Amino acid sequence: MIQTFSFEITAKDKKTKARTGVIHTPHGDIETPTFVPVGTQASVKTLSPLELDELGVRLFFVNTYHTYLRPGLDVIKKFGGLHQFMGWNGPIITDSGGFQVFSLGRKKFVTKNEKEEGEAALVSIGEDGVVFQSHWDGSKHEFTPEKSMQYEWALGSDIHIAFDDCTPYPVTPQDAKKSMERTHRWAVRSLEEHGKLKAEDGRQNKPYQALYGSIQGSVYEDLRKESAKFITSLPFDGFAIGGVAVGETKKEMANVLEWVMPILPDEKPRHLLGVGEIDDIFELISCGVDTFDCVQATRLGRMGRVFTNSELRIQNSEKEFNIDITKREYAGDMRPIEEGCGCYTCQHFSRSYLRHLFHVRELLGYRLATIHNIYFINHLVSQIRASIKEGTFAEFRTHFTNP
Amino acid sequence: MIQTFSFEITAKDKKTKARTGVIHTPHGDIETPTFVPVGTQASVKTLSPLELDELGVRLFFVNTYHTYLRPGLDVIKKFGGLHQFMGWNGPIITDSGGFQVFSLGRKKFVTKNEKEEGEAALVSIGEDGVVFQSHWDGSKHEFTPEKSMQYEWALGSDIHIAFDDCTPYPVTPQDAKKSMERTHRWAVRSLEEHGKLKAEDGRQNKPYQALYGSIQGSVYEDLRKESAKFITSLPFDGFAIGGVAVGETKKEMANVLEWVMPILPDEKPRHLLGVGEIDDIFELISCGVDTFDCVQATRLGRMGRVFTNSELRIQNSEKEFNIDITKREYAGDMRPIEEGCGCYTCQHFSRSYLRHLFHVRELLGYRLATIHNIYFINHLVSQIRASIKEGTFAEFRTHFTNP
Repeated sequence: MIQTFSFEITAKDKKTKARTGVIHTPHGDIETPTFVPVGTQASVKTLSPLELDELGVRLFFVNTYHTYLRPGLDVIKKFGGLHQFMGWNGPIITDSGGFQVFSLGRKKFVTKNEKEEGEAALVSIGEDGVVFQSHWDGSKHEFTPEKSMQYEWALGSDIHIAFDDCTPYPVTPQDAKKSMERTHRWAVRSLEEHGKLKAEDGRQNKPYQALYGSIQGSVYEDLRKESAKFITSLPFDGFAIGGVAVGETKKEMANVLEWVMPILPDEKPRHLLGVGEIDDIFELISCGVDTFDCVQATRLGRMGRVFTNSELRIQNSEKEFNIDITKREYAGDMRPIEEGCGCYTCQHFSRSYLRHLFHVRELLGYRLATIHNIYFINHLVSQIRASIKEGTFAEFRTHFTNP
Repeated sequence: MIQTFSFEITAKDKKTKARTGVIHTPHGDIETPTFVPVGTQASVKTLSPLELDELGVRLFFVNTYHTYLRPGLDVIKKFGGLHQFMGWNGPIITDSGGFQVFSLGRKKFVTKNEKEEGEAALVSIGEDGVVFQSHWDGSKHEFTPEKSMQYEWALGSDIHIAFDDCTPYPVTPQDAKKSMERTHRWAVRSLEEHGKLKAEDGRQNKPYQALYGSIQGSVYEDLRKESAKFITSLPFDGFAIGGVAVGETKKEMANVLEWVMPILPDEKPRHLLGVGEIDDIFELISCGVDTFDCVQATRLGRMGRVFTNSELRIQNSEKEFNIDITKREYAGDMRPIEEGCGCYTCQHFSRSYLRHLFHVRELLGYRLATIHNIYFINHLVSQIRASIKEGTFAEFRTHFTNP
């Protein structure tokens, strides 16, 4: 077993909890803070591993639930893990599958078979784990802390997340407490199973697989603090803040970070699950988050919404950091999406061409917009890292958010 | 006006009419024979210009009809032509729009508006040209030889094709003759208008835009020969064989080449319109075709049919040069599509991963399959070029088609 997972802090901001660091993994180093794009089904939608690398992506997220169902773990085991299966040699983080099991289960069925649309999926949650029906074909499956750890082990990701009971929103304090307590019992079981898998895995030079504990507690201060204290008392390699971006307000999310972050030990990395819209980034980094995953950059890209911080943002009545490139007003616009942007898209193509590609539904358009959005956010986060190191984080924040 | 369009023959096969050459254009040289992928809507589906370049694509096809409708010529004129609009600095060939005007017009309406589906598009063909309704929105448009030449001029492609009356199939000899004679009159008008545009275009250093005449005559020997004689009597820069791959048999197509090719002057390049399935390539090259465009490589790729000439082809009951990667049997297949293939896809990904991407409809799959198919066909054609130069064309053909 190669013991190469570690974390070092390289700089701290004086006015906030923001910090820069490096997570060392068997598949390479990750400079933090870092944005983590999502490759739900073992592919960051529209992009090749080569492009991810060129975009400076150092870590991406793969969903255990999706890959467990398709292609299935037997296939991925044959390859020795996700890295070889996807042709990606950099670090990978996987979740426990819990979030999807709960959230897809609590939503409507989504299948190709129209007859089944609208039927509710069956999810039965017990102390042992969760039994659910595949959202693809209705087949029955069970996720327990032990099974989830086994699945992540088979995926071979560099960072695993413990199996938790992802508390829905809104929720009563009583139900949130019950859910949190279950998460805590499952955290213990996850750690134990993960330890067993480590001990049993006989492969020579097996890369170290880290395990992060997941903190729950919904929007309640006492629960969040209790969860942070309990989970950090366990020997996890890092910590994930879960149960956010599930419907609560941005203010409520900020509260959660304010309560939880001071309790987390400085010396271990922190991952914020499912958060990373442009206007969240300064806030979450200033609270001390090291890594954060979010589908917004890629999803908006495929919808033709491309990130910008130029004069357009001010004109944009929606006050968002993006423009809708599919609009007719861009049909003859010869400028790149963002003047001065160094991405492949902006270096080679105009708003006009992009608008055309979306208009006629050419697949290249989805990709060029995705490339721009990931570049934009990575560039922003790299500027933030530099500003933390230079002691100018606050000034850069003001400069970026009020250009 | 930069006079850089020329053609030179570099080698000739002794047993067939196959030859190698170089077409010099203002945007670079094209080694022939060459396969020409199709970028119908100003994009070779799924691929970026960078990828096309890396795949060794030196020339690609853009459809005047499609770009005329969307984004519209006003947009492309703003950019000074397709090269700048698409971000592609290599040579481009455009058609006259005639084929689409006739073929889309003769088919059913295809629009996003379901109400209109099934209605026949209105196409009225007269001596002056064709009036038709857009297959997108039903708006009325007119293509004449003069307008078609003006459109291609605005697109700024390196090679234009004269406006012709694309004869449908099947057709009576009488109707084929009428259609051919109209094509001949339109060829004269196309040349005249193209000359005017050249003379009128005042831009300094304007790249030379070549014009190819188009040969019609359906499947009738006397008409094809008459058309070849008439069109080659006009001062075109090269010649295109049109009205093939419109429904006739492969044998009939081979006949057309046999009749027409000996009449074409050696010293000018010949383009075969819309033909280039794997099993056509040896035949068309042996008849002396220099360039040929075909959507098969890219279209099959997006359907998950990937080219192979390995042992699989023999097992494949359909006796085609491709396998259907979406099949369950490839779910756990760790081999690349084609052992020994040098393409990005085969160098980095397994059949299993490709099958997964298609199975879950990830856009990356369509691209990886397209990359492989274009690489495969380009590699084949480059091997053919080498074999012609080395005098081993016949042997290579036997080797490839009976492995």
